[in-house]
Order: sequence, then structure tokens, then C-alpha cells
Amino acid sequence: MNRRMIFYMVGNIVLLEAVLLILPTMVSVCYHEMNCINAFSITIIISAAAGIAMRLVFNPKNNRVIYAKEGFIIVTFAWIFLSLFGCLPFMISGEVPDFFDALFETVSGFTTTGASILRDVESMSYGLLFWRSFTHWLGGMGVLVLIMAILPSDSGRAIHILRAEMAGPVIGKIVPKIKDTAKILYVIYLILTVVEFIFLCIGGMPVFDSAVHALGTAGTGGFGIKADSVAGYSPYLQWVITVFMIIFGINFNLFYLLLLRKFRTVFTNRELWFYFGLMLGAAGVITYSIYPIYNNFSDSVRHSCFQVASIVSTTGYSTADFNLWPDLAKGVIFLLLFVGGCAGSTAGGLKLSRVIIMLKAILRDIRHLLHPRSVASVKYEGKNLDVSVLNGVTTYFALYFMLIASTFFLLSFEPSFDLQSNLTAAISCCNNVGPGLGLVGPMEGFGGYSGFSKLILTFAMLFGRLEIYPILLALYPRTWTKK
Amino acid sequence: MNRRMIFYMVGNIVLLEAVLLILPTMVSVCYHEMNCINAFSITIIISAAAGIAMRLVFNPKNNRVIYAKEGFIIVTFAWIFLSLFGCLPFMISGEVPDFFDALFETVSGFTTTGASILRDVESMSYGLLFWRSFTHWLGGMGVLVLIMAILPSDSGRAIHILRAEMAGPVIGKIVPKIKDTAKILYVIYLILTVVEFIFLCIGGMPVFDSAVHALGTAGTGGFGIKADSVAGYSPYLQWVITVFMIIFGINFNLFYLLLLRKFRTVFTNRELWFYFGLMLGAAGVITYSIYPIYNNFSDSVRHSCFQVASIVSTTGYSTADFNLWPDLAKGVIFLLLFVGGCAGSTAGGLKLSRVIIMLKAILRDIRHLLHPRSVASVKYEGKNLDVSVLNGVTTYFALYFMLIASTFFLLSFEPSFDLQSNLTAAISCCNNVGPGLGLVGPMEGFGGYSGFSKLILTFAMLFGRLEIYPILLALYPRTWTKK
Repeated sequence: MNRRMIFYMVGNIVLLEAVLLILPTMVSVCYHEMNCINAFSITIIISAAAGIAMRLVFNPKNNRVIYAKEGFIIVTFAWIFLSLFGCLPFMISGEVPDFFDALFETVSGFTTTGASILRDVESMSYGLLFWRSFTHWLGGMGVLVLIMAILPSDSGRAIHILRAEMAGPVIGKIVPKIKDTAKILYVIYLILTVVEFIFLCIGGMPVFDSAVHALGTAGTGGFGIKADSVAGYSPYLQWVITVFMIIFGINFNLFYLLLLRKFRTVFTNRELWFYFGLMLGAAGVITYSIYPIYNNFSDSVRHSCFQVASIVSTTGYSTADFNLWPDLAKGVIFLLLFVGGCAGSTAGGLKLSRVIIMLKAILRDIRHLLHPRSVASVKYEGKNLDVSVLNGVTTYFALYFMLIASTFFLLSFEPSFDLQSNLTAAISCCNNVGPGLGLVGPMEGFGGYSGFSKLILTFAMLFGRLEIYPILLALYPRTWTKK
Repeated sequence: MNRRMIFYMVGNIVLLEAVLLILPTMVSVCYHEMNCINAFSITIIISAAAGIAMRLVFNPKNNRVIYAKEGFIIVTFAWIFLSLFGCLPFMISGEVPDFFDALFETVSGFTTTGASILRDVESMSYGLLFWRSFTHWLGGMGVLVLIMAILPSDSGRAIHILRAEMAGPVIGKIVPKIKDTAKILYVIYLILTVVEFIFLCIGGMPVFDSAVHALGTAGTGGFGIKADSVAGYSPYLQWVITVFMIIFGINFNLFYLLLLRKFRTVFTNRELWFYFGLMLGAAGVITYSIYPIYNNFSDSVRHSCFQVASIVSTTGYSTADFNLWPDLAKGVIFLLLFVGGCAGSTAGGLKLSRVIIMLKAILRDIRHLLHPRSVASVKYEGKNLDVSVLNGVTTYFALYFMLIASTFFLLSFEPSFDLQSNLTAAISCCNNVGPGLGLVGPMEGFGGYSGFSKLILTFAMLFGRLEIYPILLALYPRTWTKK
């Protein structure tokens, strides 16, 4: 275990965070928020000092080689430190004085969950609102991916870090060099965010609101700045957000392939069709279910498309309180909470590629029962799927289910929350969606939970975003023993 | 595909059912229920005629060899025919006139679910109440297993039928001959049932009630004959039922090993310890949760132990309306709905051995991440676990989850049922437990569902009892094409 390299990389991340905090500080400067400027400045100084200290103390000198396990540990520690330093502005400013609240909000931001403990979001300062949404954007594509894109490559086998931070069952480099892969991904990400920002501005959304919502959509996060999420904006703006939520739930590799004009590869992508098909089907059922409420076809379609895009892409914005919808619509939303977007996107959740691979594993086992001696290979996206990937996906699903079950069990000790609220809170946080049903519905918040439950949910969000294994490895004693 | 053999075996089963129906007819004779005697007699004539006809028409002559796929198909068809003929007495007697209701009740009986559509169970005739509970007993160990135990072995490779009907990830013969294995299992089963019957009679329970409850406990079914399930019986009787619910949730192979005085093998059985540990932990949490309601330690312990044993063994009796318990207790019950008892018992559900194997699969994958080139073998109950079994279990879990999700989705179209009721109804029926929460709680019933939803739940119970694959294979087109 290359411990020096681990903490050296974590130092880099903390230092990067200090630099990135300059952006929300500028926002506070624009709006003359002295208190916030203060809080950000102190955080920048602390983070920068801590980052530089770690870089100096743990300088790995010549041994910069890391293996898969170091990759997982780096990512785990990076995300924990990022969140610990990232919550300081909330606490120092006094706007979110409680540590558990501030940590919950920050982790919810970085993991692109979008669940909030704020009881009155509209009274928050602009600087902090911007920082919240900016954490979505950073966490969506990954902070370590960002560091690889901008810093000179200083770690051997950085692919292990990329694999550990990016979600999905199979991660490929789109170009041979990792640094270039990271750069391409971030450039596509940035351009798409800017395009959404422009579309929102054109629709008459104020510049600050547009920026915050573009960042929140891009990271598939979902922190809003209004008490009613995006329900108060015009139908045009809601449709723009719907379209971009769908776009950011698509595998980014496909956008790169589009740039290369490899249309055939893009349009034969199974996961993409599954993604569209699932959303279309779900939106159809929900429209049918909610039509009697709105008595208006275009409103019903708009609300159902928005909500489906929001849940499947694990963003979590809402245009209506779906808590009040019929149980059929709520049932569909409940099931959608599990699936998540495409692998290689900024969306969280189980990922559709895993669902497809699980279906293929089931089909393989049925065929095996029919012809016990046959050895059938399983194809996925035109290639033979490695058996270990196939089995890894079903095992991951079992683990994922156990994560949700444990989170739900621990939340059940909360005296004033009912089963439906606790269950959907657990699923929603583990999948980085944001809202649940009942007391954690889209127009409610997570502020009513105790400090203990908030900490549980904070870990659930981290486990979900990093896809469980990195944190499990960090907690597994044998990881740390020398062999 | 040996089609003649399939329908020949199904004919045998239907004929056996005609013989078995003599028992409830005798009960009706004792209680002078003319209407019932009539209904049973007509059913016996129809079943016997149909069974004999099928045996004659589909006589397989010399080709009695079957393979795994025929085993699955035989089991699927046997259970469907069994239920179709078994529901006739309910309909002919006019006590359950609706076909969907009668089919639901019969399938709920054979699959040992115990979910009921009856609105007034206390007004039912004794003969039908006995038949309901007798189906539990038959379905618990398996009807095809019974046929193998009593008929001269007339099918080559009958092990395929045993494997398809008995639940659990790994089924072994306890003695080399299948006929002997089936006999030993049924003898142990019968003796334990009689012992429970005697214990209940000693406690002052009427003979009829004792018989019905002994049959219902043995099959881990749960059909009661009182509106309040077993809440009205004395604490002694409730404790007797608790103990026997736990016993019938244990792998029957262990009882045989006990008879052989192989105590060491029994007491090092992982699944057994996991089973006891899980129940102890769950009962502890529930006692803590419900203590403020009963304000009495012994009542709290009794109710929580009874309920935990009932849910884990997938029986479904209840001594209290746990729908009114705090959300912590309900949360624990909700999670217990998934697991089920030990493999090789009469309990339904996922089975604890699968949970253990899944945990081992996860641990294997963690080790693989740490040491990518290591090839670690996984041990289970002292033996090396075959990789295909290991992966089969995680794939089964994915399939099992999809079954629950699909059932829940289809139930959501029901206009007057809420999410919690539909979700727990789906889980409870897929796991053959019986009661759920909310509108399908222990003191409610499934009578409020529409015919469509009842049919969905009927299939869910069959899928659950036969562990999904047999029915999927019967529905899979390639099973039927000649190669």
C-alpha cells in the first residue's frame, strides 16, 4: 500500500478545493455579502494550508506507482476530505451552524444527490447557494477526474483512480491517454453546461438562477433555490431543464462518438435505447395516472416528462408535489428511484447498463437450465462480456440492495418518520436522487431527521456515489495489513 | 422434450389430489355438512376422471427418461393443475363463488402463503377450512415429492423433479435413492406435525383447531380459522406455535442428521446459526420498539417472538395487529419479509442460505479487488462452493427483485390501494409469507383487490413457491422448440 501517494493525492484535492472556492467567493463579492466573503476566505486559507502541508509531508518522491486498491482508497479519502472542508463555509457563515447539517448538505452536493436539510432555502446568501450548486457540478463528473485533466500527470496508472471515481460497470478510456480522456470529458461537460445556461437565459430566467440550475442539471444534482424547486418557472424553462436532465443522463462517450461522426455506433447503443424506452413508458403511465388531476393534456405531459427525467437522471428537481399524485404515479416513481441513468454519465443510481447486464445474466441462466452443457457467451454493446464483469454486476446488485436495507433499518429508529418516508429516503440517498415520498417528498426536506440519521444518510450518499466498494475497501482491515 | 411424460406425471398428480380430497370430505361428514360433501364428491369424480384420462392418453410407454427441463415443466404444470382442480370445492359449494377468489385462496394454500380473500372466515364450513389448511401441508413439502414417496418409481432421473419442486440454492439427496429421500422427508414431516398437534391439544385447543393449526404451521402456511388469527388463544398455545414455526423453518436434512446422531454436523451448520441469530436480533429490536405499547415485558417478548418466527418462517399467523406497532417494529418486519427460512425447509422466501452465499460472493469480490490475480475459492457448509452455484444465487436475487418490482407495478393500477399496501402485498406474496402492512395487514385480507390484481398475486405466489425459473422456462419459447 503506497500510503504516501494516497495522502499526497488527497492533499492535491484539498488544495484544488481551495482554488475552486474562489468562484463562489466572487459571487459573494458581486452581491456584497460580507459575511460570506469572510467565511469563504477563511475556508480557502485553511484548505490551502492543509493541502500544501499534506503535499509536503507525504511527498511520495520516486514511488508514484499505484494499484487498484490505492485508487479506491484515494477516491474514498478525497471525497471525505473534500466534504469536510467543503462544509466549512456553511458553518463559519453561521447560515448552517450545525456540523451534521452542513456535512449533509455538502455531501448531498458533491454526490449530486440534492437532498437538503435547509428549511428556508430562499433566505440563503447567493454565495452559498452558488457553492452548493457548484459542488454538484464538480461531483458530477468527479473531482479526481478534474485533477487529472488539469494537472500534469504525476501518478503511474492513474486509470485506477478514474475507474474508482467514475460510476458504472465497465469504464473505458475514450482515447489512449488518461489525461486526454479526462480533458475531453470535462470539455464536453463544460460546453453542454454553457449551452443549457444560454437556453435558460433566453427563456427569461435571471442570470444567477440560470447559472445555478445549469450547474445543478449538469451534475444531475437537483439543489433548487426556491421553496417549490422549479415549479414557479415557465413551461419553456421546465422543458429546457427536462431536455438537459435527459442529456446529462446519457453516457458521455456517446457525445464524443457523435463528435467523431460515428453515428452508427451511437444509434445502436442498447443502453441509450433502453434509457429512452424506459422514460417514454414511465412518462406514459404517469400521464395516464395524473391526467384526472390536471384535466389538461399538455400540463400532464409536461409534469410527467419532467418528473420522469428528473428521477431517472437522478437529478431531483420537481415541478409538482408528486407526493399528492395517485398511487399509480407514485408507484412508478418509487420503482424509478432504483434504476438511475446511463453508465459514464453524471447520473447516479444502479445504472441502466447494470439492469441490462442483469437481464442478460438471467437469460444466460435460463439457457443453461435448458442446455446444461452449453457454454454461452454473453454479448453487450457488440462485444463479448467478460464473465467476471457479468457476475460482478449481479453481486453488486446484492450489495446495493443490502446498502439500502441497512440504511432503511438504521433510519427506522427515528421516532417521527413513517416507513414510506424512511424507505424512500434510504433509496433516494443511496441512488443520489434527492427527494423521496411522504415526509421527504419533493416539497419537504431532510431537516426533520436527527443528527444520527443525517450522518447515516450522509454515508449512504457517499456509498452510492462511489458505488460502495471503495468505502468498503477502506473499512476492510486486510486492505491495511502488509503482506 | 418428453411431452408424454410431462402430462402423464400431471395426470398422476391430479389423480393423487382426488385421493387426498377424501380427507376433507371425511371432515365434512363428521360435521354433517351436506353441501360440502356434495362439492367434494363432485370434485373427486372430476379430478379422478381427468387424472385417469391423462394417464391413459399420455402413457409414455418405454420412454420414461426426463431431463432437467422436463423436471421444471412437470412441476409447473402439476402446480397449475393442482390449483385449478383444488379450487373447485370452494366454487361448487358456493362458499367462494368467484373463480379468481377461489383460485387465489387455493394457490395461497398450496404455496403456503396464507394470504386470504375471505371476508368472514368464521362462517366457513369445517370441511373447506380443513381443505385450506391441508393444502398448506401438501404444498409445504411438495406434492411431487409426496408422489415419489408413495408411488413405485416410474420416472428415470426423478431427481430433476425433486430439485425443481424443493426450494433453495443447493438440493442434495440425503440418501442415495430418491424414493427413500422423499419418504424420510415425509416421515419426519408427519411426525413433527403430529407432535405439534398433541402439544396444542394438551394446551386445551379444540381438536379441529389443533389439526388445522398443526397443518398450517407445518407447511409454514398461515391460514387461520378465526378473524383475529391466533390472537385469541392462550399464551401457552401461542408459544407452542412459535416454537413449531421455528422448527419448520429449519432444513429437514438437519433433523435426519440428528436422528443419525451427527450432532457435530448439525451444530456447525452456518445457516442454522444465522437463522437463530437473525430471529434473536429482530425479536430484540421489536421488543424494544413495542414495549411502550404493552407496558409488560412478557407480553412484548411473546408478541415479538411470535411475529418474528411467523414472518421469518413465512408462516403468517399473528397474535397482534402489527400494523398498529411503531414504525421501527414495522420496519424490521418489512425487512424480514424478504429473507425467508432455511433452504430445505417448508418455508418460502429468498432463503437464508442464499443470503449467506450472497455475502460470500461480496467478500470474494472485495478480495478480488485487493488482489486482482488471486483465485479464491468460496466455502459453504464445509465444502467448496461451485462457482456456478455462487453466481446462480446472485443472478437469482436479481430475478427475484424483478419479480417483486413487476408484481408491485401491476398492483399499482389498483385505484384504492396505497403504495405501502401494494408493496408489502407484492413482497409478501412473492415470498409466500401472507400478511403485509397497511390494507393487507394481518387483521385485513386480500379481498379488496380486483380480479386482475388477484390473478397477478396468484401468479406471484406460484412464482415464489417454485422459485421463478420453472415457470419462466415454461413461458420461454425455446423450451418448446425441437432442436
